[in-house]
Amino acid sequence: MSNAENSPHLPIEDFRKYGYQLVDWLADYFSNIGDQRILPDITPGDIRSMLPEGAPEQPESMDDILSDLDRVVMPGMAHWQHPGWFAFFPSGVSPVSVLGEFVAAGLATQGMMWSTAPSPTEIENTVLDWLVDLLGLPPAWRIDTGPGGGVLQMSASDSTHLSLAIARHHAVQAGHATDSLVAYGSEQAHSSIEKGARIAGFRHIRSIETDASFAMDVDALSNQIEEDLASGLVPTWICSAVGTTSTTAMDPIRSIAAVAKAHDMWHHADAAYAGSAMICPEFRHLQDGVELVDSYTFNPHKWLLTNFDCSVFWVGNREKLIDAMSILPAYLKNESSGNPDAIDYRDWHVPLGRRFRALKLWFVLRSYGAEKLRDFVRSHVDWAKELEKQLVEDNRFEIVAPRTLALVCFRHLGGNEATKSLANAINASGTAYLTPSVIDDTDFIRVSIGSTWTEQRHVDALWELIDLNGFPI
Amino acid sequence: MSNAENSPHLPIEDFRKYGYQLVDWLADYFSNIGDQRILPDITPGDIRSMLPEGAPEQPESMDDILSDLDRVVMPGMAHWQHPGWFAFFPSGVSPVSVLGEFVAAGLATQGMMWSTAPSPTEIENTVLDWLVDLLGLPPAWRIDTGPGGGVLQMSASDSTHLSLAIARHHAVQAGHATDSLVAYGSEQAHSSIEKGARIAGFRHIRSIETDASFAMDVDALSNQIEEDLASGLVPTWICSAVGTTSTTAMDPIRSIAAVAKAHDMWHHADAAYAGSAMICPEFRHLQDGVELVDSYTFNPHKWLLTNFDCSVFWVGNREKLIDAMSILPAYLKNESSGNPDAIDYRDWHVPLGRRFRALKLWFVLRSYGAEKLRDFVRSHVDWAKELEKQLVEDNRFEIVAPRTLALVCFRHLGGNEATKSLANAINASGTAYLTPSVIDDTDFIRVSIGSTWTEQRHVDALWELIDLNGFPI
Repeated sequence: MSNAENSPHLPIEDFRKYGYQLVDWLADYFSNIGDQRILPDITPGDIRSMLPEGAPEQPESMDDILSDLDRVVMPGMAHWQHPGWFAFFPSGVSPVSVLGEFVAAGLATQGMMWSTAPSPTEIENTVLDWLVDLLGLPPAWRIDTGPGGGVLQMSASDSTHLSLAIARHHAVQAGHATDSLVAYGSEQAHSSIEKGARIAGFRHIRSIETDASFAMDVDALSNQIEEDLASGLVPTWICSAVGTTSTTAMDPIRSIAAVAKAHDMWHHADAAYAGSAMICPEFRHLQDGVELVDSYTFNPHKWLLTNFDCSVFWVGNREKLIDAMSILPAYLKNESSGNPDAIDYRDWHVPLGRRFRALKLWFVLRSYGAEKLRDFVRSHVDWAKELEKQLVEDNRFEIVAPRTLALVCFRHLGGNEATKSLANAINASGTAYLTPSVIDDTDFIRVSIGSTWTEQRHVDALWELIDLNGFPI
Repeated sequence: MSNAENSPHLPIEDFRKYGYQLVDWLADYFSNIGDQRILPDITPGDIRSMLPEGAPEQPESMDDILSDLDRVVMPGMAHWQHPGWFAFFPSGVSPVSVLGEFVAAGLATQGMMWSTAPSPTEIENTVLDWLVDLLGLPPAWRIDTGPGGGVLQMSASDSTHLSLAIARHHAVQAGHATDSLVAYGSEQAHSSIEKGARIAGFRHIRSIETDASFAMDVDALSNQIEEDLASGLVPTWICSAVGTTSTTAMDPIRSIAAVAKAHDMWHHADAAYAGSAMICPEFRHLQDGVELVDSYTFNPHKWLLTNFDCSVFWVGNREKLIDAMSILPAYLKNESSGNPDAIDYRDWHVPLGRRFRALKLWFVLRSYGAEKLRDFVRSHVDWAKELEKQLVEDNRFEIVAPRTLALVCFRHLGGNEATKSLANAINASGTAYLTPSVIDDTDFIRVSIGSTWTEQRHVDALWELIDLNGFPI
């Protein structure tokens, strides 16, 4: 119908033409990412200076617009999908997930309620139930068998913030003053803990000391809680990191759960990166005790081949979530909260509107199948092990934190300056990118292996760069 | 490189093949949406029952996966893009925006900082600056000329929540107890006001009475504030609705701003739907005084041809936003907060990660051009006027609230049951869908004109349905 003569929209035949063209453009991009310089050679303002001051009055041609992908966008890209990208954590993507996102964009449905998006809603809760089993999580978190359930969110920051808002809501309902509530995380926890707690209105946010492996020191936690109680404060929320951002340290969930239970705290687990690894049974010991937490988040958009945004948030008891998020009067709550087949996801998070995010995840889980997803994760862990071995056997380097999954943290024994120089030399190569970091005043280098297009040869090439640039001590 | 023999990924040639196939699938969908039944004929659980209990171990073929778009997804779709969709507010989309989303998904970049996504960051702030001018908003909101600035968020709910979190942060910094803070909105304000305030930790949320046009009664507001002050509470945040959800009533921004200023409150404007209309100068009088607010949100994903999610949030003073959201120590703030060319958008909202959402908006603004976007909005308003005229001239119906833009609110003079029956009959047709609603115990029907594929003939057909099913009184 956009072919109507007076239609303002792109004619359908042009949509086909430019659609094909962009499929080819992305196919070429996927094929050639490795040939790009990982980081752009620009300064702030360079991209903006290529753009006009204001929007055009008259239509521009699609040819002109699409040619600006190469003229304007590419020169300012940090290529997260470059196979030599070892920085931060991976930004997940796969050809299949991109196709899913494309279809979801075209359907342009609004999934705030079951009734406004029945198939997106049911596909979402089905796929999240699949993931409960795939990751070996408690069956009680499946919406069809348990009191829990999952919902897709934008990011782990949103999920963590949500768990904080739930915890605060129930603490206040129980009669406590908002300003008396305390949130706890380890000093190695992700910045989203402090930020989420602040946004959720917590005035007291504690960073608990960690042990030699950078995992939370539970004795220190208990001491801090006693101190806070003595001051008249109310321990309300605690986060266990299942893989800290800095070094993927694993907080002792089971011990922390005992403390949380003793003080009636909400216990949230942040497995943003590491959660994807739980598809492999051999890694699940890293989150021993996970069945005891109240909420859990992990990001398929990190390490499970699904493009951002796609963060899963599970709760052990969905009533507590819905009580905090729904603003419907009680007499209207039945359908959505009581019928797991007709979830109204608007009552499961901050936003009302929501797109069909589950489609791409459904595509990914089916197209790869569980076995290939496990192989994908295992290959990265194996390559990380191999790199770790090379570093350990070389007397110029040392490992600064235990490797739990596919993140290797090392330093040059020449000291902080030597370590920084090494990182800079590697990043200046344009063929590999890793994150220089600091822990306990010690500079180190994070090598995160997990990008979609990374192969063993790219990790080998990284080792060659390290070897070449790591001057003798 | 996914052509490597041992690659787990979809081969690039298959990506091309299935990519083309999905371009065609969407092209056909766009062409034929009008032939679909708007709402599906299913019951909760029907879609889920077509899906297996768990994820597959082995890969499924792309042919099987894509055929499930027709087998599983379509039977459970509420077709928001049907040209007869007059329910809620429109869910924006256009062929061009879908292409933009597709490319953004494939690039899979993470825009938390300028350095991790230079071109996405600069294109975002450029395009939002363009919109400041396009909508006739204060130049001070442009990042390049003013102390303000804009950021893309997921939804207006997120934007409203953000403004509440900022207001609460500064009130608490000023020494007030969290539990003493009060948020105000009209009783006709969107549910996201109450929900956002609750999530941001406000214990006191006031619904202010409205006048005959359903706009906020400023005297009632002043009285409530005096009462709250007398009780020792602290008026902190107020929302002006630029178009209420129920009837697109316009709160008197200028008068509310005077009250807000007198009490040092944060003044937020929610123009989620109506903001898009401000591209036409003749509608700007509806938000007279907008230059006085502290923050403003509108959703291109409603009425500006851009698919969800794409909600703009502007602040008049970006320092207040960054102070509340950034958890960096002060000595690290300079680059992002002081250099408008190198924005770190992580400090502008709750989430850390963010995708390249500005790409589709950039595509839309350029492909249509401002003139055609104005024509698009004006055509809907004209059709709404015509429908309103038909209703007014028919002695069976009456208008229940002033029409300000392209939403027509009417009732059957036969009463609530007659009105509900009429709505049900129209919705049962399968060719048009509108929202039955209630205001002041009066049932009425909302007709929201603004879907991408709606043409005048679809509004004419709706009138025929109303005429046919509106039995005589």
